[in-house]
Amino acid sequence: MKLLDELKFNSQGLIPAIIQDLRTGEVLMMAWMNREAVEKTLCTGRTYFWSRSRRKLWMKGEKSGHYQLVKEIRVDCDGDSLLIKVNQIKAACHTGYKSCFFKKVTEKGDLKIVGKKIFNPEKIYK
Amino acid sequence: MKLLDELKFNSQGLIPAIIQDLRTGEVLMMAWMNREAVEKTLCTGRTYFWSRSRRKLWMKGEKSGHYQLVKEIRVDCDGDSLLIKVNQIKAACHTGYKSCFFKKVTEKGDLKIVGKKIFNPEKIYK
Repeated sequence: MKLLDELKFNSQGLIPAIIQDLRTGEVLMMAWMNREAVEKTLCTGRTYFWSRSRRKLWMKGEKSGHYQLVKEIRVDCDGDSLLIKVNQIKAACHTGYKSCFFKKVTEKGDLKIVGKKIFNPEKIYK
Repeated sequence: MKLLDELKFNSQGLIPAIIQDLRTGEVLMMAWMNREAVEKTLCTGRTYFWSRSRRKLWMKGEKSGHYQLVKEIRVDCDGDSLLIKVNQIKAACHTGYKSCFFKKVTEKGDLKIVGKKIFNPEKIYK
């Protein structure tokens, strides 16, 4: 069974992809892929996603240089989500943090920023 | 800022939740939460999800006893996905594997089962 035969895309033709740092196990981000994004990710070894807001295919790092080098791809039991283990160049989040999941719920239910900024997004995304 | 004020639910009122094993860092599953599922997860310290196929709220482990004890909740930069770190009782996947992501893409592009079965689903889900 090939990956693309196994995948169930949703009614918009998309599947969620969880991106995890291979070395640390940190979950870096979640984004959406269409069939073409999956194919390009498989072929090139870099992650491609479908931007729902911009309605276009994009490669992670195309502006920032913060590529994700694909090391392992997994699919879940239902074939409706992907887990992709990568070596992340610098940082995954466009806000400057390593991971997009840098806000943690405290015991009081508030949100607290954890982790530190690795780059200044104003310098990268002009 | 409280978690529920920060979250952006999609047009069906849902948000994806990535479930990660706190101790090992293994990504266990991805499932969907509506507002009530998030509230119940926050209040009870166990994970609740919205089943899109059965159109009902369910608690992970309600049939199997394989609960997820919530240890940390994170939200991403855009507020449109959750990362929940848990202590997983026994296994997360209804097929008997620890993680739902037990199928790996090989170098040839085929799928290979990695990980081993922890329980027999026929005995648990009668």
